Amino acid sequence: MEDFPSFEAVREAARRIRPYVHRTPVLTCSTLDRMVDAEVYFKCENFQKVGAFKFRGACNAALSLSDEEAMRGLGAHSSGNHAAAVALAARMRGTRAFLVMPRDASRCKVAAVEEYGGNIISCEPTVASRTVVMDRVLAETGATFIHPSNDPYIIAGQGTATLELLEEVPGLDVVLAPVGGGGLLSGTALAAAGLSPQTRVLGAEPEGADDAYRSLQEGRIVPSVNPQTVADGLLTSLGGNTFPIIREHVEQIVTVSEEAIIAGMRHVWERMKIIIEASAAVPVGALLEGKIDLSGLRVGVILSGGNADLDKLPWVGS
Amino acid sequence: MEDFPSFEAVREAARRIRPYVHRTPVLTCSTLDRMVDAEVYFKCENFQKVGAFKFRGACNAALSLSDEEAMRGLGAHSSGNHAAAVALAARMRGTRAFLVMPRDASRCKVAAVEEYGGNIISCEPTVASRTVVMDRVLAETGATFIHPSNDPYIIAGQGTATLELLEEVPGLDVVLAPVGGGGLLSGTALAAAGLSPQTRVLGAEPEGADDAYRSLQEGRIVPSVNPQTVADGLLTSLGGNTFPIIREHVEQIVTVSEEAIIAGMRHVWERMKIIIEASAAVPVGALLEGKIDLSGLRVGVILSGGNADLDKLPWVGS
Repeated sequence: MEDFPSFEAVREAARRIRPYVHRTPVLTCSTLDRMVDAEVYFKCENFQKVGAFKFRGACNAALSLSDEEAMRGLGAHSSGNHAAAVALAARMRGTRAFLVMPRDASRCKVAAVEEYGGNIISCEPTVASRTVVMDRVLAETGATFIHPSNDPYIIAGQGTATLELLEEVPGLDVVLAPVGGGGLLSGTALAAAGLSPQTRVLGAEPEGADDAYRSLQEGRIVPSVNPQTVADGLLTSLGGNTFPIIREHVEQIVTVSEEAIIAGMRHVWERMKIIIEASAAVPVGALLEGKIDLSGLRVGVILSGGNADLDKLPWVGS
Repeated sequence: MEDFPSFEAVREAARRIRPYVHRTPVLTCSTLDRMVDAEVYFKCENFQKVGAFKFRGACNAALSLSDEEAMRGLGAHSSGNHAAAVALAARMRGTRAFLVMPRDASRCKVAAVEEYGGNIISCEPTVASRTVVMDRVLAETGATFIHPSNDPYIIAGQGTATLELLEEVPGLDVVLAPVGGGGLLSGTALAAAGLSPQTRVLGAEPEGADDAYRSLQEGRIVPSVNPQTVADGLLTSLGGNTFPIIREHVEQIVTVSEEAIIAGMRHVWERMKIIIEASAAVPVGALLEGKIDLSGLRVGVILSGGNADLDKLPWVGS
């Protein structure tokens, strides 16, 4: 695979990871369809292994290593789904994972990583500490670093969700995915551009973490500074690989209010009876806010994950 | 159909309601399988229309009326899923529904009935008031009364969930369903006895509302008096039609602690990423408590519904 991921890399990833990932269901919700006057197809990555699309990319990255590389292990830093995904991918590849996680990571995320047999190395909750600790771990172990969004194998792996969606529901007018570091959105864009070029790809981003929106506006990567949102999987900035793909293939980034994100999350729980996390609710919030005219269209939405903290629901006690 | 429902009545119900109900998915959970050393297949009636199996029975009852009967409407009393189910079934049958609901019924249950176009008549939250008001409404309208559990068409309709489950996963060793008034459990028992006689049928009941357990012990209907449980769909007593079927075909009623019900509910939310209500979690709690030895067996569980109150989760603030 060339360094820069392509549609062919997404196809390769799909072939590579097929035996290891769930082919997640596509669900619909007639109430929501009436509300937005569209046909909406939800690709339910909350049902993916580790509860999020992140396993697709991690699995692709782990399976793309040589046996010698794999033997030395995988390394990642993450306070959330990417850590669990790399831990499980490493176990499947028969090797170790070294996960650098901030001391204040939530108990349930740490428990998930431990359950998958990952080795957790704590750091202070700062980028500086994380970098120092990660570098030390990689130097000591020889493990291969797997970036949560900017790694080409990660981007290609995340694109496989949209590949499956477009195979199952061909000819969608629009696909909508959340954007944080851009791994999912750039993979989505590659998959759609290759398989269904007439399909428009849109990103959905919290208003309180709108660095991708501003990056597209300004034509350069605007870093995410002090993001404030309940969608805690979308705090990071675009990277050198994800930004160009998004700039080329993504029509628009829609920003979504916190109220709409929470309303979207609650709508999916109440009406569809499935659990999604706040980050996954951002595209649903975009639909509810009606900032984009989807009237009469067939719309795909990637529901990115389901790892919500059941002790801390955004609509309880607020 | 004879007055007393039979396996053939369940089959008839299935043919009758097929165009109107969802064929709900059957899901599995590898973590739970490991925990209980069994293969567990969950029939997900939380994804049924109105969010509960109750729509199957109400739909069967509505479709079994003559046009003349149907024209006068359907009547029911319920503070929960049966009211919503009858409202939607009536709308589908092109007629009216009169739902007698207690003044203190939860706002979200009332909203669901209103959404389906049901006419709500309030009563005091006592059996006496409910009976007086219901009788008056039936006399005034000529509507047909649909009992929530003891009506033969209701029993036959509820059995169709197990028919689908056993068609999809043939030869289950055990099927487990929650028991309140016994409509679901007796329908389940009829379906299993007819389609798969070697399959054992068990009921799961809250310890704090164990009237069905005691009824089987004593060989007569023991009324439910002052039941105390988070599983608020299982408060009612067995009836003259449900009890004999359960006595004949159900091997055992397992009682489940409140702690296990809540743990089961949370397990399904966290691991399976689907929303079930507390009443649906009672069989899951039975599995977790390990009161029945299911080691090495293939077990079906009816997840009866998903209408949980998202503002009042049993594990929050307790």
